[in-house]
Amino acid sequence: MNAGPTRVLELLRDANGPCSGERLSQALGVSRAQVWKHVESLRKRGYEVDGTPGGGYRLAGSPDRLYPEEIQSGLGTRWLARELHHFDSTDSTNRVALELARAGAPHGATVVAEHQDAGRGRLGRSFFSPAHVNLYSSTVLRPELTTDRAPTLILAAAVAVAETVAATVTDGSRVEIKWPNDVQIAGRKTSGILVELAAEATRVSHAVLGIGVNLNVDPKTFPDEFRGRATSLCAHTDGPVDRAAFARALYTHLEDALDRHAAGGFAALRGEFEARFCMTGRDVTVVETGGAEQSGRVKGIAEDGALLLESEAGSVVRVVAGDVTLKKGETP
Amino acid sequence: MNAGPTRVLELLRDANGPCSGERLSQALGVSRAQVWKHVESLRKRGYEVDGTPGGGYRLAGSPDRLYPEEIQSGLGTRWLARELHHFDSTDSTNRVALELARAGAPHGATVVAEHQDAGRGRLGRSFFSPAHVNLYSSTVLRPELTTDRAPTLILAAAVAVAETVAATVTDGSRVEIKWPNDVQIAGRKTSGILVELAAEATRVSHAVLGIGVNLNVDPKTFPDEFRGRATSLCAHTDGPVDRAAFARALYTHLEDALDRHAAGGFAALRGEFEARFCMTGRDVTVVETGGAEQSGRVKGIAEDGALLLESEAGSVVRVVAGDVTLKKGETP
Repeated sequence: MNAGPTRVLELLRDANGPCSGERLSQALGVSRAQVWKHVESLRKRGYEVDGTPGGGYRLAGSPDRLYPEEIQSGLGTRWLARELHHFDSTDSTNRVALELARAGAPHGATVVAEHQDAGRGRLGRSFFSPAHVNLYSSTVLRPELTTDRAPTLILAAAVAVAETVAATVTDGSRVEIKWPNDVQIAGRKTSGILVELAAEATRVSHAVLGIGVNLNVDPKTFPDEFRGRATSLCAHTDGPVDRAAFARALYTHLEDALDRHAAGGFAALRGEFEARFCMTGRDVTVVETGGAEQSGRVKGIAEDGALLLESEAGSVVRVVAGDVTLKKGETP
Repeated sequence: MNAGPTRVLELLRDANGPCSGERLSQALGVSRAQVWKHVESLRKRGYEVDGTPGGGYRLAGSPDRLYPEEIQSGLGTRWLARELHHFDSTDSTNRVALELARAGAPHGATVVAEHQDAGRGRLGRSFFSPAHVNLYSSTVLRPELTTDRAPTLILAAAVAVAETVAATVTDGSRVEIKWPNDVQIAGRKTSGILVELAAEATRVSHAVLGIGVNLNVDPKTFPDEFRGRATSLCAHTDGPVDRAAFARALYTHLEDALDRHAAGGFAALRGEFEARFCMTGRDVTVVETGGAEQSGRVKGIAEDGALLLESEAGSVVRVVAGDVTLKKGETP
């Protein structure tokens, strides 16, 4: 949105009640006709602005959209999502962010979309991305990182997502992390995290951290393969989740987690990760990147973020990346 | 080049002497006027084709260019450089190949250029890329590889480059590898290798393997900072290097090295690497990715391609990636 309408929106928000056209005209240094045009722009974008001759303008409602002017209003981050690109629909926010990164976008530049028609998940899977109910967000990162440390970005992000989700649920449900990247509410998946990166040999040039969170999905609309395994945050809150407010809270937690990760690596977040980690003691099968399969009982998480599995023979193996299946017959 | 002129070129090459317009016309199933047009296309591309009325056409000379029809003529690879894109000039063959990879180019698709005006070297450095004298080549790879193994692609490529260079020198000079990626003739650098990759967390989606080799550089034209440290293959051969033939030999060695790397990892190439490795016993300083500095005496190369350094106190440290400086006062 242009600067004029954005400024009018800010003034109407601050006024928290009617605001005369005269006052807006003076504050912006433009004519009252121009103020009216800005108000019309806001209305076209979905803002409800009441206006009565003599009574001035009043902000009566904001659209349920992840517009920059919604997310950034009151956003306290220093670098994350200070540059924010909104799409009604795109193929994949990660793809767009990777393109922005190649074009030189700064650390923290973020892409949000209302809908993805080719949302990407881990291991080449697609990510269920219905319109106007969730958050699909991808952030450009320019970390000082070697490629072998890059997977721990996922763990840092999982901590931030889990904390944001936990601060939003109101029914006391357990919020847990399934290694490496699923955040679950009461045992059902509510978010996915995907890191894609470009590197020169071992040096990460840039990474894109994609986060998708199910916020207001009608459970009936989940595809068959997810039903019973997926959930949406609104099933554990009083009424629908304010998506822009959720994004704001997430970006705040995420900036903090990434700053600590940059300073101290995964070790700086390991305590929080473990506090939300739901797999210790569980029997699992892991298909590692490359196809090798490991089975064992989860012992915990290593300093470097690897999953520690104890085999039946008692030896402990490290799994750096892979797809984990909890053995059946157990409830989470 | 189009199919018609390419086919005429093949027939003239096979004829190894004059070939009548009539025969070419029959072989291609086109008119003699069309044959003449194809011959004109070849001449425009730099091929010398003698033609006398009644005497037919004869290939008298080929241009010193890295054209696909030059490199691929007699190329025995199965997958490497079967798709080959030639540029008179480009910014960086690695950049072009990365773009091709994103657009879906197959494993082995290769970009060659006569000149790069923004040639990329390791660690963000530029790569000296004068026109028409060297080989600048970048190949798209779609390896089954985790990011932590990706740096060993550089070592596999270094083996292939070193073998190709060694098979070309005629003055008996030593051809050695300076870890990780420089091939040296008599102690002077003659090639550079750069791997750039795209990954999802730990899984490499695609990589681009860039190789630049100094073949026919006039030593006087080396920039000041390289003089005394760089050399060109032609300083160790009888006359100029046939660049297309060198590319063909390199691609053959490279396909073999990469196939063995895919099957057995760096371990499958370690013997050859060590046989050309010039650093054992040398005192070096390594600036690692991330900035940490290690000093010590080189003990050798680990199974996974890491450089092994022995500190003064006698402990052995592994260096996975970094920039190596040989301590001064020693001759290589």
